[in-house]
Amino acid sequence: MTALTPPQTANILVEALPYIRQFAGKVVVVKLGGSSIDQETLDRALAQDVLLLRSVGVRCVVVHGGGPQVNALLKRLGKEPKFENGLRVTDEDTLEVVRMVLVGKINRDLVATINGQAGTDPAAVGISGEDAGLLTVEAIDPRLGFVGSVTEVRAAYLHRLLDEGFAPVVSTIGSDVSGQPHNINADDAARAIAVAMGAEKLVYLTAAPGLLEDVNDEGSLVPALSAEDLRRRIGDASISAGMIPKLQACLEAVEGGVGAAHIIDGRVPHALLIELLTAKGVGTKVTLEPQA
Amino acid sequence: MTALTPPQTANILVEALPYIRQFAGKVVVVKLGGSSIDQETLDRALAQDVLLLRSVGVRCVVVHGGGPQVNALLKRLGKEPKFENGLRVTDEDTLEVVRMVLVGKINRDLVATINGQAGTDPAAVGISGEDAGLLTVEAIDPRLGFVGSVTEVRAAYLHRLLDEGFAPVVSTIGSDVSGQPHNINADDAARAIAVAMGAEKLVYLTAAPGLLEDVNDEGSLVPALSAEDLRRRIGDASISAGMIPKLQACLEAVEGGVGAAHIIDGRVPHALLIELLTAKGVGTKVTLEPQA
Amino acid sequence: MTALTPPQTANILVEALPYIRQFAGKVVVVKLGGSSIDQETLDRALAQDVLLLRSVGVRCVVVHGGGPQVNALLKRLGKEPKFENGLRVTDEDTLEVVRMVLVGKINRDLVATINGQAGTDPAAVGISGEDAGLLTVEAIDPRLGFVGSVTEVRAAYLHRLLDEGFAPVVSTIGSDVSGQPHNINADDAARAIAVAMGAEKLVYLTAAPGLLEDVNDEGSLVPALSAEDLRRRIGDASISAGMIPKLQACLEAVEGGVGAAHIIDGRVPHALLIELLTAKGVGTKVTLEPQA
Amino acid sequence: MTALTPPQTANILVEALPYIRQFAGKVVVVKLGGSSIDQETLDRALAQDVLLLRSVGVRCVVVHGGGPQVNALLKRLGKEPKFENGLRVTDEDTLEVVRMVLVGKINRDLVATINGQAGTDPAAVGISGEDAGLLTVEAIDPRLGFVGSVTEVRAAYLHRLLDEGFAPVVSTIGSDVSGQPHNINADDAARAIAVAMGAEKLVYLTAAPGLLEDVNDEGSLVPALSAEDLRRRIGDASISAGMIPKLQACLEAVEGGVGAAHIIDGRVPHALLIELLTAKGVGTKVTLEPQA
Amino acid sequence: MTALTPPQTANILVEALPYIRQFAGKVVVVKLGGSSIDQETLDRALAQDVLLLRSVGVRCVVVHGGGPQVNALLKRLGKEPKFENGLRVTDEDTLEVVRMVLVGKINRDLVATINGQAGTDPAAVGISGEDAGLLTVEAIDPRLGFVGSVTEVRAAYLHRLLDEGFAPVVSTIGSDVSGQPHNINADDAARAIAVAMGAEKLVYLTAAPGLLEDVNDEGSLVPALSAEDLRRRIGDASISAGMIPKLQACLEAVEGGVGAAHIIDGRVPHALLIELLTAKGVGTKVTLEPQA
Amino acid sequence: MTALTPPQTANILVEALPYIRQFAGKVVVVKLGGSSIDQETLDRALAQDVLLLRSVGVRCVVVHGGGPQVNALLKRLGKEPKFENGLRVTDEDTLEVVRMVLVGKINRDLVATINGQAGTDPAAVGISGEDAGLLTVEAIDPRLGFVGSVTEVRAAYLHRLLDEGFAPVVSTIGSDVSGQPHNINADDAARAIAVAMGAEKLVYLTAAPGLLEDVNDEGSLVPALSAEDLRRRIGDASISAGMIPKLQACLEAVEGGVGAAHIIDGRVPHALLIELLTAKGVGTKVTLEPQA
Repeated sequence: MTALTPPQTANILVEALPYIRQFAGKVVVVKLGGSSIDQETLDRALAQDVLLLRSVGVRCVVVHGGGPQVNALLKRLGKEPKFENGLRVTDEDTLEVVRMVLVGKINRDLVATINGQAGTDPAAVGISGEDAGLLTVEAIDPRLGFVGSVTEVRAAYLHRLLDEGFAPVVSTIGSDVSGQPHNINADDAARAIAVAMGAEKLVYLTAAPGLLEDVNDEGSLVPALSAEDLRRRIGDASISAGMIPKLQACLEAVEGGVGAAHIIDGRVPHALLIELLTAKGVGTKVTLEPQA
Repeated sequence: MTALTPPQTANILVEALPYIRQFAGKVVVVKLGGSSIDQETLDRALAQDVLLLRSVGVRCVVVHGGGPQVNALLKRLGKEPKFENGLRVTDEDTLEVVRMVLVGKINRDLVATINGQAGTDPAAVGISGEDAGLLTVEAIDPRLGFVGSVTEVRAAYLHRLLDEGFAPVVSTIGSDVSGQPHNINADDAARAIAVAMGAEKLVYLTAAPGLLEDVNDEGSLVPALSAEDLRRRIGDASISAGMIPKLQACLEAVEGGVGAAHIIDGRVPHALLIELLTAKGVGTKVTLEPQA
Repeated sequence: MTALTPPQTANILVEALPYIRQFAGKVVVVKLGGSSIDQETLDRALAQDVLLLRSVGVRCVVVHGGGPQVNALLKRLGKEPKFENGLRVTDEDTLEVVRMVLVGKINRDLVATINGQAGTDPAAVGISGEDAGLLTVEAIDPRLGFVGSVTEVRAAYLHRLLDEGFAPVVSTIGSDVSGQPHNINADDAARAIAVAMGAEKLVYLTAAPGLLEDVNDEGSLVPALSAEDLRRRIGDASISAGMIPKLQACLEAVEGGVGAAHIIDGRVPHALLIELLTAKGVGTKVTLEPQA
Repeated sequence: MTALTPPQTANILVEALPYIRQFAGKVVVVKLGGSSIDQETLDRALAQDVLLLRSVGVRCVVVHGGGPQVNALLKRLGKEPKFENGLRVTDEDTLEVVRMVLVGKINRDLVATINGQAGTDPAAVGISGEDAGLLTVEAIDPRLGFVGSVTEVRAAYLHRLLDEGFAPVVSTIGSDVSGQPHNINADDAARAIAVAMGAEKLVYLTAAPGLLEDVNDEGSLVPALSAEDLRRRIGDASISAGMIPKLQACLEAVEGGVGAAHIIDGRVPHALLIELLTAKGVGTKVTLEPQA
Repeated sequence: MTALTPPQTANILVEALPYIRQFAGKVVVVKLGGSSIDQETLDRALAQDVLLLRSVGVRCVVVHGGGPQVNALLKRLGKEPKFENGLRVTDEDTLEVVRMVLVGKINRDLVATINGQAGTDPAAVGISGEDAGLLTVEAIDPRLGFVGSVTEVRAAYLHRLLDEGFAPVVSTIGSDVSGQPHNINADDAARAIAVAMGAEKLVYLTAAPGLLEDVNDEGSLVPALSAEDLRRRIGDASISAGMIPKLQACLEAVEGGVGAAHIIDGRVPHALLIELLTAKGVGTKVTLEPQA
Repeated sequence: MTALTPPQTANILVEALPYIRQFAGKVVVVKLGGSSIDQETLDRALAQDVLLLRSVGVRCVVVHGGGPQVNALLKRLGKEPKFENGLRVTDEDTLEVVRMVLVGKINRDLVATINGQAGTDPAAVGISGEDAGLLTVEAIDPRLGFVGSVTEVRAAYLHRLLDEGFAPVVSTIGSDVSGQPHNINADDAARAIAVAMGAEKLVYLTAAPGLLEDVNDEGSLVPALSAEDLRRRIGDASISAGMIPKLQACLEAVEGGVGAAHIIDGRVPHALLIELLTAKGVGTKVTLEPQA
């Protein structure tokens, strides 16, 4: 890499410091999909970003899913994964496997990666939505079994952990009012957490550059969208089916008071840091009102 | 049950209230073995005890193991459990299973049972010793693989959770200084936590009445022992081999500053409550000095 | 007394702890009549109850009268006690005697009894309603002389003492706005204090089992009454004349926001403890709404 | 009174303000003898001084005796007062009378006088040395009965009351370790309280101008004495017998750390205010070291 | 000076202490004109008053002008002072001189005089209205150049300094919203500061006894005026032209919520102390309502 | 300027954030010489740096001199500047001019420049070393007149201003114990302030690139020096005479506990920001120990 001149360096710093000040004390919810997990280099860059942002006062909450990994263990145990309308059919045995994989494996690995970067200040703590009643759910549909949608978030528990300097990593399991655990869609859980915490930002790390005008052209990135634009596009057929639920969550987030929702390219190292601290950003940014 | 007379009732209360006052604000570490878990009635009574004690200000920390349950999943996945000198030989695959079972299953079930009893105040939170660097370990023996003994406990993390009214449930996994997770013997982890927290009491719930003079006579309970008595007995051959590690942990606990260590009968419902709040107690109590 | 089984003991504790939690931080005003004072055993049991309840966070305020003792000193000084409609006619000399007996004798003896039980933490402090303007009164009737009814209570003074861990014992003398002291009916003063402090409970210790359906049958106790029931009964002629003012005070207390008013049998040792910490209680309990 | 010129007024203020600053937050213990009580004008001027000093942050504690008034009630009840070496022989009946007179009458009257001057902020609170274990005593001599000398003062109780803006008025009754009340010499109790509170000043209001060189010449006032001077004079026969115990208490006070002890003329209205806030003062001032 | 009798002294103290209490914690803004500055004895007496009042909790703010001194430096630099309607025409060079004289000379000298009296607690701090955006102004009239009237006062900055025990001395320079400094009339700046701080008193130290009925008769002082009286007099021609702006500022002050505005004789040593702490005062006092 | 790639941007941010964290809450003292003042672009960039650093928690203190500007005013007033051994001979008239120029002109201009950049949060406050007794001095040599060296710094005053979010700008005038103001060498005053505040960094902005091996070759910059290196070089003749006092101050600073002292090129815009937040820095860095 060519060395930068002092003015180039000064420019980036003069640009970044106001963002740092703006986000200090604010909540940023970062959602990782199952496919962007377990890629060691990226995981480590993300862990570094979370720790760096935390070091200047940004309150990061990491939320994760883990579909592929659940499928893998189910199969090892001789059970075929089943889905309806994109949601996992979750009977009691499946639920036990989901909990073991999300809470006992993926969450653990993320905590270990962050703490491994954190030197003498191992700040990451793993949390299941069942802990301290963090995520209350109700069942979506009896045919799906133990699959819930979030009805209440005890945001205070996360705020307290952040107040004390911890970096929470959340597995998306919740309990219904009777105490029965349920599996939750991770995109939706991240959205519910961001809204309940009054987050400044909700960031989805994906395996794509963001929302594309033309799904086949990575250069056709839509950098910014208002809620109204987004609603119109979701109505249109112009968007790939796989992107729709994530866009729907972005829409609900900004309408629920989150400052901005981002879909960014998790394959770029330090994407989170660049998105937050530079004017240009990476990926697609959704805001309630059109951006200046 | 025959109704009690007012004087009988008054007696119990007059006896219990000073204990409540004495233990208010003090830490009590309760260790559950794998065999005393998953017995629904007992689990519920214990959950109730933890919540009742917490409601009057006692700071309970629950620590659990889960050997039998780990063995079961290993076998389902086609792997034979291996032990040396009573310690599980833990290769990478085994460690993954241990984490999934302890953190993703047993810990989850305990949290769910406590929160299920706690109504609108779901205070239980599950923790792995990896979170926030709670348990730092070093490997015991290369032949055992990832099996560690505790070298440092970040007691402050548990104290903070207790300060805020939470009921921590701890899985006994720890990290070495490089961040590598290790399996830990749960009796020993409980002892290390109790010492580090300056606990008033360390209570082992077992499937026995306590320490027996004659292992074949349940009526031969030894109700109280000083550290000196205990050291002498451990030297003697008078004690069942299975009891020795637990007694060793009791000895180290009281020598490390814990007020008293108890081995009590987890098969008696509400054994914890009775042990703490009545003069008579249940099981065997170890203190540094001989008791009056 | 026969020894209790572990389940019997556990039952009482499981029942009592939620009450302890419920009453922790709450105010309980206990009124002792002149006739239930000076009975050494009972006084000591009451002192113990006050200290035990305080040790688990209940904020007890003791209020006392002392009619018989005042009469005795008046007679020794050659003055005949005079009453109109059950209220003491109080001229200047009588007032001086009332103050000396209530503040200088009975209050002192109660403080000494409580502090005598309290070991190294002598928490009881004697207070007259004149101190810090605690009780402001206005004269009831010129023919009665210096007899006042309470128009204002400086509850903050008692709250501060309780905040600092003291156990206040209150003599029922008050000052009018010109600073002139007046004698006050103790049942009524206790009611006024309970209402002003937002007490959870107002407890009258009497020399009877509570309110009886049939005044000649101690077995005919009425255990619970709503405000509406009570108002109806006061209207009826079914109640002994002596009980009416106390019931009237109970009615005003619950209508003024006190959680419950109790008339209990001060002759039962530890009656206060049993009433507060068991489901069954002793005596008659008055609440605003009918009890479930 | 002739009107003062602006420079005269300015002089007094320029002189007084540094004293106000110096004494703000400091403790001043004022002892009233029985003979200087019950003189309405003086009592009111003293009450005003206490309230004015309190209004600028001086922490005044009033301590009183009441010998003549105790004698009067004893006689009305047909009992002859008895003394040995100037101390009241105090049997159980006498003690009851002492408590009634000091706590139930004199203390009450002082509280009423102060609160009568205090308008809407009735700050005075009456305290017996028995309250909150304020004064612990041991019996001086079995022949004297319940007469104690102070062995411990719970200064924290008075400090707390002062912190909250109250003006404590203390009756000099104390308890021994068994809880038995005892009568205490008021000069000595005041000294013990001043020492325990780290008082800046201990002021005895007497019916004399202070210490006189010639007891028959009121103009022969000794304005200032060091501890050494005082010790020498107590040894000499030059001092009236009645003054010796008070001087002895002054000596112990300054040797115990009190800034200065004063014997001033309680017959001069506002003597306390003048003593504290002017350079000239009234009466005799005792300090550890000779004054400049 | 004849020595005062104890009752004379007591009278002044009994009168002064309630004022001290009344003004403790209150803000008093004192304005010094250029002509009453640089008279060493008076400056020292004022410095003493500010420090004495501060020592008993009065929060004094000193505000100063310096017209004559500015004129003197302008002339030394060969520039003739120019005025329109009594306001200094202030071009860029003049502004530089105004700032140097007010901030760099007069303010410095006042700070030095106060700190010279303050021994080991040099509490005075010099402030320009530009610091921390204390005084925001807008230009009055283009013909006057950089002369502003105050549109906003950041009272919080002065309150913070007072909270921490400092004695602020303010030069009356302010900035407009673009950051350009402006000269401000000091009487008006003092009024704006007093109103913004919610001052109890605004005191103008002048070279006159106050407002006179007959400007040629120093004995014709008007001691008190209501806002209504004052408005009427300003309308009349009965007042010397030079006094009108000061009276206008007094009127705006009391209408803006300041407790009282005073015009007092700065030639009397300790005039400030006498005005604040005696019933009689010196000079003219303006209040919103007529005084009793 | 060419646009940077995401990795280039990420690199700078990943590098800068740990510095931001490291310096958050730390004190940085920045000294401006008279020649680097009044260059509008540079002043504005510096003002921006101070505000940006403050926005991320760095506690900046600006210290300034102003020799050339003092000389200019002296000459306009017809007075020839005089120096001995590089120090200004300061009689009473000269001192008055020094105070007017430093406090009333240069300090004012710096405050105005910073507040002009600060929008609605005008945080800069001008301070003279005389305020609040900030700088106590003693005269260096009678022949120099009022020229002092710093003997004590009241660092607490600056810490309090920083705690409340202000940006202090300090003129280097101090008072001796009698209150007499003195002129102080600004490099030395900055050093004394940095040491007294426990500063992390002391930064001299100069009109040179730093310390040069060869004073005629701007490329011969010495980037880093230990105290030992520096002491050796000061002894050598290898250094330009003008640099010696600054180097001497750097040496005393790091020996007095300042983390590092820097001599950097004030002609590079944003030199302060680059020095603090990049690994490379600009200019010469002096530390106690040799740098890795």
